[in-house]
Amino acid sequence: MSELQVTPQTHIKRGAKKADYSQETIYQILDEAFICHIGGVVNGYPQVQPNLHWRIGDTLFIHGSSKNGLISAILASKQTCVAVSLFDGIVLARSAFHHSINFRSVMIFGTPTLIEDEVQKKQLLDALLEKCAKGRSHIARAPNKAELKATSVIAIPIESASAKVRTGPPVDDPEDMALDIWAGIIPVHLHFGEPIAEPS
Amino acid sequence: MSELQVTPQTHIKRGAKKADYSQETIYQILDEAFICHIGGVVNGYPQVQPNLHWRIGDTLFIHGSSKNGLISAILASKQTCVAVSLFDGIVLARSAFHHSINFRSVMIFGTPTLIEDEVQKKQLLDALLEKCAKGRSHIARAPNKAELKATSVIAIPIESASAKVRTGPPVDDPEDMALDIWAGIIPVHLHFGEPIAEPS
Repeated sequence: MSELQVTPQTHIKRGAKKADYSQETIYQILDEAFICHIGGVVNGYPQVQPNLHWRIGDTLFIHGSSKNGLISAILASKQTCVAVSLFDGIVLARSAFHHSINFRSVMIFGTPTLIEDEVQKKQLLDALLEKCAKGRSHIARAPNKAELKATSVIAIPIESASAKVRTGPPVDDPEDMALDIWAGIIPVHLHFGEPIAEPS
Repeated sequence: MSELQVTPQTHIKRGAKKADYSQETIYQILDEAFICHIGGVVNGYPQVQPNLHWRIGDTLFIHGSSKNGLISAILASKQTCVAVSLFDGIVLARSAFHHSINFRSVMIFGTPTLIEDEVQKKQLLDALLEKCAKGRSHIARAPNKAELKATSVIAIPIESASAKVRTGPPVDDPEDMALDIWAGIIPVHLHFGEPIAEPS
């Protein structure tokens, strides 16, 4: 896998040491996370909505109601930013200032495109089902024409993108290292429990 | 606690049954979540960045580097949207179409204001430390003048806001209920582990 080209838009200036432009890091974060946040401008005002995303090759996909206002707006403006963030820990430093969190995040800028072809749309939605639970696209009752029509699938190229990653223990200033203050991390992860069957 | 006034901007039209405008629900979601996503427009292009947030009364606070481009942009434009999302489960329905996730999310639209007063800023950052780990603001080495100057704290009123919540088992169409397809949920939650001291 290669490095993505850094553009003025994707260049991370704050916390530049945490920047990572490798496809490998970016794709791993996108594949592990379920929820993304998409940004656009609706009636002249910025708007951010959570969405589910999935990745196939170099393309990120999101979906939603065909009547969703933000999705309509980003398609019309041909502009969106998608952010994906994983929360890995609370970082407790000796100094208040160096408290932080461990995280892995991705930001993608790009032109969203509506998937018009019904066969392709069905295949893409199957891929989302497979991300939610392996094998599910072969088990679930397939979408009918009306259901497919009610759902928009949007493709966003993963070209203008960056990752930002913080891992490991706190980093305090040298002059604070001798202070008798507990420092360390509280690890955090998303726990997926055992499936619970619908009450009958 | 009361209901927030529903405005054209906060009125949830898609999945309206999941909408909740009560302060109680909105505040609970904000208080449980650590990561928010803030939206704005930078150089004419929508941008979404993860941030940490905390709430005091009817105000949401975020913070960041004084030189952060998105924070500068939302302060200049006097417009932002902040989204906070908690992921509670994967919902596996009989039909592909009714697959979903359980989640609790909040969207806030408002005018961000920079906190200029140094004493107030220090108190607000203490409140963030307390959210990260109770008692921490009394233990950590307090920020000095330079550190306080490097950090911007931004207030956003929680007035134009809404929550959207999905809980419980899948909801399938009546005609699919007799299908021999496993249906239920995979519960998901954020797990906070035991603190790990910095390696010495």
